[in-house]
Order: sequence, then structure tokens, then C-alpha cells
Amino acid sequence: MDDKVMIKVGVVGATGYAGEELIALLLSHPNVRITSLTAKIDKPTVFSDLFPRFTNRIDLVCTDPDPEKISRDCDLVFLALPHTVSMGIVPQLLKKGVKVIDLSADYRLKDFKVYEKFYLAKHKDKANIAKAVYGLPELYRYKIKSASFIANPGCYPTAAILGLSPLIACGLIDTDSVIIDAKSGVSGAGRKVAESFLFTSINEDFKAYKVNIHQHAPEIDMVLSRLHGRKLKVTFVPHLLPLTRGILETIYIRKSPTARAGNLLKLYQNFYKKEPFIRIKPEGQFPRIADVAGTNFCDIGLKDDGNKVIVISAIDNLLKGASGQAVQNMNIMYKLPEHSGLL
Amino acid sequence: MDDKVMIKVGVVGATGYAGEELIALLLSHPNVRITSLTAKIDKPTVFSDLFPRFTNRIDLVCTDPDPEKISRDCDLVFLALPHTVSMGIVPQLLKKGVKVIDLSADYRLKDFKVYEKFYLAKHKDKANIAKAVYGLPELYRYKIKSASFIANPGCYPTAAILGLSPLIACGLIDTDSVIIDAKSGVSGAGRKVAESFLFTSINEDFKAYKVNIHQHAPEIDMVLSRLHGRKLKVTFVPHLLPLTRGILETIYIRKSPTARAGNLLKLYQNFYKKEPFIRIKPEGQFPRIADVAGTNFCDIGLKDDGNKVIVISAIDNLLKGASGQAVQNMNIMYKLPEHSGLL
Amino acid sequence: MDDKVMIKVGVVGATGYAGEELIALLLSHPNVRITSLTAKIDKPTVFSDLFPRFTNRIDLVCTDPDPEKISRDCDLVFLALPHTVSMGIVPQLLKKGVKVIDLSADYRLKDFKVYEKFYLAKHKDKANIAKAVYGLPELYRYKIKSASFIANPGCYPTAAILGLSPLIACGLIDTDSVIIDAKSGVSGAGRKVAESFLFTSINEDFKAYKVNIHQHAPEIDMVLSRLHGRKLKVTFVPHLLPLTRGILETIYIRKSPTARAGNLLKLYQNFYKKEPFIRIKPEGQFPRIADVAGTNFCDIGLKDDGNKVIVISAIDNLLKGASGQAVQNMNIMYKLPEHSGLL
Amino acid sequence: MDDKVMIKVGVVGATGYAGEELIALLLSHPNVRITSLTAKIDKPTVFSDLFPRFTNRIDLVCTDPDPEKISRDCDLVFLALPHTVSMGIVPQLLKKGVKVIDLSADYRLKDFKVYEKFYLAKHKDKANIAKAVYGLPELYRYKIKSASFIANPGCYPTAAILGLSPLIACGLIDTDSVIIDAKSGVSGAGRKVAESFLFTSINEDFKAYKVNIHQHAPEIDMVLSRLHGRKLKVTFVPHLLPLTRGILETIYIRKSPTARAGNLLKLYQNFYKKEPFIRIKPEGQFPRIADVAGTNFCDIGLKDDGNKVIVISAIDNLLKGASGQAVQNMNIMYKLPEHSGLL
Repeated sequence: MDDKVMIKVGVVGATGYAGEELIALLLSHPNVRITSLTAKIDKPTVFSDLFPRFTNRIDLVCTDPDPEKISRDCDLVFLALPHTVSMGIVPQLLKKGVKVIDLSADYRLKDFKVYEKFYLAKHKDKANIAKAVYGLPELYRYKIKSASFIANPGCYPTAAILGLSPLIACGLIDTDSVIIDAKSGVSGAGRKVAESFLFTSINEDFKAYKVNIHQHAPEIDMVLSRLHGRKLKVTFVPHLLPLTRGILETIYIRKSPTARAGNLLKLYQNFYKKEPFIRIKPEGQFPRIADVAGTNFCDIGLKDDGNKVIVISAIDNLLKGASGQAVQNMNIMYKLPEHSGLL
Repeated sequence: MDDKVMIKVGVVGATGYAGEELIALLLSHPNVRITSLTAKIDKPTVFSDLFPRFTNRIDLVCTDPDPEKISRDCDLVFLALPHTVSMGIVPQLLKKGVKVIDLSADYRLKDFKVYEKFYLAKHKDKANIAKAVYGLPELYRYKIKSASFIANPGCYPTAAILGLSPLIACGLIDTDSVIIDAKSGVSGAGRKVAESFLFTSINEDFKAYKVNIHQHAPEIDMVLSRLHGRKLKVTFVPHLLPLTRGILETIYIRKSPTARAGNLLKLYQNFYKKEPFIRIKPEGQFPRIADVAGTNFCDIGLKDDGNKVIVISAIDNLLKGASGQAVQNMNIMYKLPEHSGLL
Repeated sequence: MDDKVMIKVGVVGATGYAGEELIALLLSHPNVRITSLTAKIDKPTVFSDLFPRFTNRIDLVCTDPDPEKISRDCDLVFLALPHTVSMGIVPQLLKKGVKVIDLSADYRLKDFKVYEKFYLAKHKDKANIAKAVYGLPELYRYKIKSASFIANPGCYPTAAILGLSPLIACGLIDTDSVIIDAKSGVSGAGRKVAESFLFTSINEDFKAYKVNIHQHAPEIDMVLSRLHGRKLKVTFVPHLLPLTRGILETIYIRKSPTARAGNLLKLYQNFYKKEPFIRIKPEGQFPRIADVAGTNFCDIGLKDDGNKVIVISAIDNLLKGASGQAVQNMNIMYKLPEHSGLL
Repeated sequence: MDDKVMIKVGVVGATGYAGEELIALLLSHPNVRITSLTAKIDKPTVFSDLFPRFTNRIDLVCTDPDPEKISRDCDLVFLALPHTVSMGIVPQLLKKGVKVIDLSADYRLKDFKVYEKFYLAKHKDKANIAKAVYGLPELYRYKIKSASFIANPGCYPTAAILGLSPLIACGLIDTDSVIIDAKSGVSGAGRKVAESFLFTSINEDFKAYKVNIHQHAPEIDMVLSRLHGRKLKVTFVPHLLPLTRGILETIYIRKSPTARAGNLLKLYQNFYKKEPFIRIKPEGQFPRIADVAGTNFCDIGLKDDGNKVIVISAIDNLLKGASGQAVQNMNIMYKLPEHSGLL
């Protein structure tokens, strides 16, 4: 056991949902020692005083993030920060040689103009956008292996891209026919103190929001267009479920007129056959959020229906859609078994 | 007040969700006296012993249904029975001259072969299918006025048809492009004692079911095809929400190539301008279940998006989707104000 | 119908939960016309733009409250304001001769020092405290009949006092043995935008709060002490349920050593036999929130257990615990049937 | 690593909630290999076909339990069976020398007559009752260490006994003053397909049940009486929360007249100072279900209030209240770190 890898890890943004979830995962990871917890905070505070569920499990003090100190304390840092905040700290961390996995959207979109349009902010670190590897292991594992800076995918894009990739990679879809009807639990929005996220505003309710103008749509378009070989633009309508965690997306596709008949289920099974976290449902069965909640799995079910295909894809938005995928990326970067700390 | 209309009303199937809801509505209806409550039941039982929430509000005894007795006691009967059960009692009631509003699916589909295929049962009363008026006031009020037998629409079809009718009536849609992604609260399934409807099976979960094979699809197809002028077949995927009541449907349409530009919001406002229970949301706003739950309203929102239209339609499945619409139909049949007992 | 009473009613604090609920009740009340909706608001706004569920149901504009104008427009005003705000407007309204039903706690406690201790604020209108009639019809109907100023009871006190009054009035309890374990839905706290009321903070959680230091305890003590004939102090522990509306209180009492045997159920039935909104459960049955939610009923069940009694009392906190009881009080003040607008 | 303990473990009753939870825990336990999954089942079925959430995680076939085969395959067997079923298989397993941890109530009560009264069934294996060690580590760790047969405590009793033990062990309470107001999530009842456990029956509802006649009361009485040194009988009222997992109990005690003043918080901290799974809340803070759900912790908070004490105790009913505690017991029996597989 002497030569066991032991990574010194920091979490910046430890008080958000993704931060909390990361800490829970890292605490049970056999190759990790958490050495730094930071967040925008008035004064240094024992972390478990902020989150009593961690009492007797971790005894670190949470402080305001100081990139210098973080760089000294950590081999790798997870940034679980709101969008537009990550890019304020990434340059300093990278310069110090710390590995960074950024859970925000700041470095996902290669075209900074698209970022600025959808996130309503100037990009302050364009230089590092090109360095960031899009951390979706099922498509980019070979790049992640040698990466030192990961842009961890968004939750909606993870479910959508995993659900669509086999069809698109095989040229089976009609460009621009893709409709994604997405439903997410409330934790997907982060810990926002606003009337629309009160219990009484969500309980026994259901609604669409940002109808076909959500900032995750260009992320999906970017990745799928690359795979498709030409520009593709999805229709994307997210909805808010009265539950805490989980995403389920129902995706409707028209087949390309040139698509040949074939067993789509087999196509999916082959495409993902070595993937530890993708489970293809048998014929006639479809995913449900309860099966993936609390796990890093993405469950996918299919219905091949004449000239249409219906794909249903489900993940836990905080795990495969955020912190679980971030840990999976760390495992790949450090050549650890990909499921370490995740099962 | 002496000459106030007072209708003697019976509810057959008083112990189901729709039955309970009907009774609550009828108790506060100024022109109704409930004279008969029946249900498949072992022995006559005081209704409020079965449903303590009705204690001190109604003191009828619930008995097994006897068509003879019901006919003597009632001017009008609501059948809140499971599919395939209604057709066993309708012929006797109609023969006795009682008006009937049937909340089951037994007389909705004009083609009995479609019924038999989707409801997996022989139709036992084909003779009366043609007599049944499809009770959607917004399309068929003129027929309902003089009807004595109403096939009350299904919950999913009500939201779908109301959401699509203006577009289809105006010839704006591409046939067969219609995709309905529907989400319903649990009461939509009726009071089924099965593992899949346990609290622990539904809470914090979300899933699709009967993916594009649901029995409400042919009902939607039938009504919309009539309006469209030729055969139309929708893609229909229902999902189960972890909440008790409410339906929200997100509908995706490709415009017909010949559709001229125009203000769709105005089209909808005009189409429904005299309707007491349809509310069109202003530009950029969309319905939510919380706004229609507990009401007979159908709220509709639109996004006109280039060659696509996204329509979102929401109702309370137990009210506009069942018992509320049934009372609305009764009001029309008896020339009462259409909102009596419903606001 | 010409001589039908028609009360011009205003709601101050129309945008809180109790205000919303009041408006829904008043809209269906046959003897009420809502003439004024006010609330702390930046600029006059169509009320249904704030609460789309009221679209097509009410078309008033909500403005900032102006006591002069309210007095001209209204016969009676409901104040659905936060504690400490009501007392800023009551003196002006009373001076103008408007009847007032105050849903806040400002005039409930006859001893202003107790008020100031528990509500952490100076009382600014001591002169009117004595004028306020405590609006619990089951105990004080005779006073309410001729009152022009009502202090509407708190939600927890309503359930507790109704559950305990028969035992206390008959001298059956051991002073200071009363333990009230209370559980409330989230709407009981009012529309507070705070992290602790977010969906993710409440969903799948349950906890006690203000353990034996809640501000409703002295209100219960005051009313019960009067009934008991000497000072009585309850142990009161409130808890927060993950649901929107409803209160259930489980109350534990030691019998007085001098209490004679007797049928407690009969005692309760007699005590409340003419009450339209109290329902005593049969032997061995107990209340549940689902039976009273959406109604003005208080359901009470009992277990007589040797030298102990367990009483369970349930109400809808927004109805019998707030707005419903306020309407009941109005009905009594205007000699209307007590259930008008409430069933 | 060669000499690492590896226990061959079986789960009988793998398809219930406690069984499912056990399997999830055991899969991540470093010293366990699951070798047998059995349940009352029509025909042998791949376990993950029954519970798709286990797909790719375990590939055992679930069969009808055969004690002979189980004994050959396992060193230790968990029985996650309904009450009255365990005692039908325990004798055979014990005779074969297999260690048994029984999660049912069959061997908890030392007086079989009490068992028969509360569980409404004859006890069929009285001979083994005396052999069973009551598996509450905080009180009986020394016995568990050498036990080969454990009666795993009930969920309500675990929270109650842990909450009360320090007070009782120190002689601070007035006998028979103990009132336990308990609230449990729905999974506590097991997977029962009955109308009262439907989503629509539980959602937005809350109620008491088995008011002071619950079968867990005598279990609490038995353990506490032993500790108290004389017969003690608690008042116990359980309630059903609209959430899936978690128990919170609010406990009211009158102090013994001879109790001396002292810092109760320190008493509790000392009593449990070496316990890995007990967390005492600081002064003025109290447990909440969200902090213990998904963990094996029992959180306890106290209010010392004159002659009364209020204790609040919270656990996850499926973990510390069932499967987690069972694994903790196994760890003790095998001299493993007590938190193995539990954090």
C-alpha cells in the first residue's frame, strides 16, 4: 500500500450543491486527501458547522479562496463555482501548475462570442479556452488522459450528448430535426435564494422555463456539430421537476432519408460497450430517474419508430451531470480505475 | 328563486378520484341536488365513512349501482367508471331517458376497432357509440347543447386538442410533425393499488411510460384529423410526475411549408376569445401546473420559432381533464351559466 | 335578491399566502364584493399579473395601501400583514369606522409586554388592544357578533385551543401537564425568501424549530388560562413538514387527580355539537391533514388512556388557521350563514 | 492484502427495502463478497432485472431461499424478512453454524408472550430467543463481539433508546413520564402494496397511526426498563411523514424529583464519546432528517427546560434503523473497523 497514489485535492466553491456533493464523494475516495476547502465566505468557518451532515466526517476550516495557498496545498483543484467566477481564478491556478477541473461553464464553449451571448458577460480569460479539454469521457477520454485542465460538461448537455452520440456518429439523423424535451430536479439550478425556488413555489408544480433559449443549448450544439460533421442546432426546452436531483430527457429525432435499417439497440450497445457508466435499457424498457439518482450512471432507452427515433436519457444532475463526472475525469487523469470513489 | 333549475344528479363510480372530485364540485353547485351515489361496493356504506373529508357535508349512503333505481332517482348521471365498465350500464340508463355524461373512454372513439385495439376489450354497446357527443365544449358546444349522452374527453386529449386546435384549424401545421411530450400527476391513472403507484415508487422519481403506445393517442388523432381535414397521427409520449394533480404538455410542430407569417398569439386569442376556461399566456410567458390546479382552466402558451412552433398547454387532469369538464358539459346541456359550480 | 347583503371588502397584504387565500375565498362568497387590493408594492400592478392563477377571475389593480382611500372603498378590511405591520394601519382604519379583521398577531395578546417579548418589537398601538375581540368563534362567538375589530387567531393556537378546550373547560387536566407536539406545512411561515425555505432545504426533510420558545405558545397560554381559571403554561414544540398546507398537533395531557371517569368522546361531541366546522372523529379514528386541507374544518380525535389523554387536532393552516376563520368571523359579524363562502 | 478478511454474505429477503439497502451497502464493503440473494420469488431471476438500479453492479440470480444451500454458500446471513417469517428459517441456519443477523422483530422481545400479543402470531422458535443478542452496539457492543445470532433493533426503538439512554442510565427521569412523539418516512413500513401507501394517499398528508398501540413500544420498554432497573412504560405515538426515508422522534421527559442539576449536554457527550455513529448537537441546535438520511448516524439534540427535558433524535430508518446497523453489527462481530462500508 506504500506506493498507493494519494492526491491532494482542493474544492473551491465548497458551499454550493456541487461542492457539497464533491466533498461527499472525495471523502470515500481511496486515493484522495482533501487538503483545502474554500468558498466566498465572510470569515473562516469549520466546514461541518456550515453543513452539520459532515460533522465527524471532515474537520477542515472553509476559508475565502487564496490561489497562492490553494496551489501550495493541492495537486488538483475542483472549481464548483458559479459561471463567470471560475475564469477569475483559473489563470493563477494553471500558472502555478495545479491541475484544474472546472465545473462551471466558463471554458466549455470554444467560441467566446457564443459564451458572451448566452452567459451575458465578457470572457476574461480567452487565452485558456483552447487549453480546456471538454470532460466527457465517453467522447474525449483520450484527451482527458493527458489533460491538466478540464471543462466539466453541463448537466443537460451530458444527458443529451450521451443520448444522441451513437445516432449522430453513424450519420443516422436528419440535421436540425433534434428536439430535446428536458426535465430537471431543482438542485440543477444551484443554491439560489429566490422566490421561484421556495418550497411552496416548486411543490406540486411543474413548468417549462427558458423555452428554447437555455444557455446549455449551444453547448449541446457545439459537441454534436463536431460529431455530425456539420452545423447542427437542437430545439431544447427545459422543465423544472418537483424533486431534488435527477435529469430525464426525452429526445425526438427524424431519421436521415439515407439511413439504412438496422438494429439501433445494438448500435448503442456497441458504441458504449466498454463504458463503465453507460447502461442501455433492453427493448421496450426506458430509464427512470430513481435508477440513476445517487449514482454516476447514464441510463439510455430507445424506441425505433418508423422514420422517427425516441431516445430517453437519464442521469443524476449532481453526479454524472457534475461532481461524479468531475471525479471520473480525475480518475482518468491519474490512471486510477475509472469507478474509484464512484460506486 | 322558486323557478330555479334543480337537477337531480347521480354519480356512478363515486369512490374513484374522478367520482370524489365530482361530488366536491356538485356539492357547491347551486342548481344540483345529489340524489344517488353508487360504486362497486360490498355493502351499502355511508359515503362519508369511506371518505371522512366529506363528513358533515353529505350524508348519502353509497350502494352498488342499480340502473333501475338510478333512473328513478336522477335526471342526469355521471359515470366515473373504469374503461370497459361504463358500456355495461349505459344502454339501460339511456333507455330510461336519463341523461348520461360518461367520463370513461368507452364511447369516445367512433371507430370501435380502434377502441378494441387500444383498450384490449370487445365493445359491448356499439349501437350507442354514434349517439355519444364528444364533450369538448370549445369544439363541440353546439352539439353538447342538445345532447343527452356525452363522452367526456380524456385528460391528455383535452390539453393536447385545446393546445393544437387553432393551429390545425387554420391549416398551419405540417401533417405528422406533431410531437406531444406530456407529463401528468399521479391521480391521472385512477386509484390503482399497484406497486408502481406506491409513494416510494413515485416520490423523487420521474419516468416515461407507454412510449408512443398510449391509448389516448388515437383519441387525439381522431379529433385532430377531423379538424385537419385529413388523417393525422401524433407522436405521443406520456410521463409520470411526482405530484398529485395536473397535466402539462409541451407540443412541438413544424409549420406547413405554405403557412404564411402571422401573429400566432393573436390567432389563439381570437380562436378562444369567448371561451370562459381558456387563458392564453402573453408573449414570452408559459403555463405552469400550479396556476391551473384546482381550477377548470386550460392555460396555453406559445413560442413561434422560425419554421417551428412550441405550444405548452396545462390543465388540472381531475377538473378540465375530467370532472370539471363534465360539470361544464352539464351546465351547457341545462343552459346554465357555463362556470356554475366551477369557480 | 334586491335586499341581499353585499359587503364591500378590502384586503391589505394581498400578495402574501393568507392574502391570496382570502381573495380566492371572497371571490366565491355570495355576499362580498372585493373593492380594494393593496400590498407593499413598488408601483400599481394588475393583481392577476402578479398571480396569473387569478387571470380572468379578478381584474383589480393592487396598490400600496392608503388608509384614507381604503376607508372610502370598503365596509370591512382584512389585514393579511406581517406581524408589527398591522399596528401601523389599524388606528387610522378604526377611526374611520371601517370594520377590521387583523390576521396578524399584533392585537391577540392582551398583555403588550408579552407581545413585545415574543415579537421583539415595541407595541405602537396599545390603546386598541383592549378593543380587539379574539376571533375564535367556538369560544367567543357572542363577542364576535357585535365586534368591529377582530384579532384573528394564530394557526397553531387555533388547532391547540380547539383540541384542548373541552377538557380544560371541564376541569379535567393537570395544570402544566400539557404537551403540544405540533407539525405544520411550509405555508405557515408566510412567503419568506430565505435559504431555509428553499425547495431543496425542505423536501425530504423534517425538523423541529423554536423548541419551546415559539411566539404562539403565549397565545395558547393566554386563552387556555382564561378557560382554566388559573395560569397554565404549555410545552410547545413546532416542526416543519415537507408539504404546503396543513397543521396536525398531537397533544398529551395528564388528567387531574380529581377527574372523574366519563366518556371523553361524548364530552367533545357535546361541547362542539352546534359547531359547523368542528368534526369529532369516532372512537379509534384520528384526523389526517388530507381530510382538512382545502377546508375550514378542524378535525379532532381522542384517546383516553388511563391517567393520560392523547388529543389529535388538524386544520388547514391557511383556512381555519387564517383566512377561512377570518371569513367565518366576517360571516358572524354580518349575521350571514356561518359557512357562506366556506364550503 | 492477501490476509484481508473476506466474508461470504447472503441476504434473505433481498427484494424488500431493507434488503435492497443492505445490498447497496455490502457492494461497497471492502471485506464482503455477496454470495447469495434469496427472496420469496416465483422463479429464479437475475437480481438486476428486478432492480434495474443494480444493473452492471451485481450479477447474481435471486432464488427462493433454501437454508441448506445458503448455509453452504455463506459465512453470515442477513435476514431482511417480514416479521413472523424469520423464525421459520433461523433454526436451520443456526444449526448449520452460519452466523445470522435478523432484521425482523422475531427475536427481539425476550418475553415471547409480549411478542405474540403485539405481532398477533405464535412464536415458533422459542428455543432460540434467549440466544439472540439485541444488536444495539451503543449498549451491547460487548455482547455483539462474540455473538453469532443478532436480533437487529427496530427503527423506532433505535432512535428512542439512543435518545433516552444517558438520562435513564443516570437515573434522571421520572418513571412513566416518557412521551415519544415519533415521525417516520414511508419506507419504514416496508414495501406494502396497499391503498394507504399509494402516492396519492401519502403526498401532502400527515397523520398519526397505531396511537399508543404500536408494536415497537414494548421493545422500547424492554430495553429501557433493563437500563432503568425497574419497569418503565413509554407513551408512544408514531406518525407518517410524506417522505421516503428518515425518522425523527421528539421525546418529552419529566425529571425525577431527586435529579440533581447538571449539564445534560455534557452527560450525553460523555455517554457517547467513543461512539462512531452518535453525534450530539451543540446547545440550541437540534437534529433534522436531512442530516442523517443516507448515513448511519444518530443525531441527538437536547433542551433542558426546568423540570422537563426535551430530546430530539434522528436516524435514517433504513440505515441506523435497519441495514446500516446490521452492517455495523457484522463489523463488530468480525473485528473490522466499525464504520467499514458505512461512510
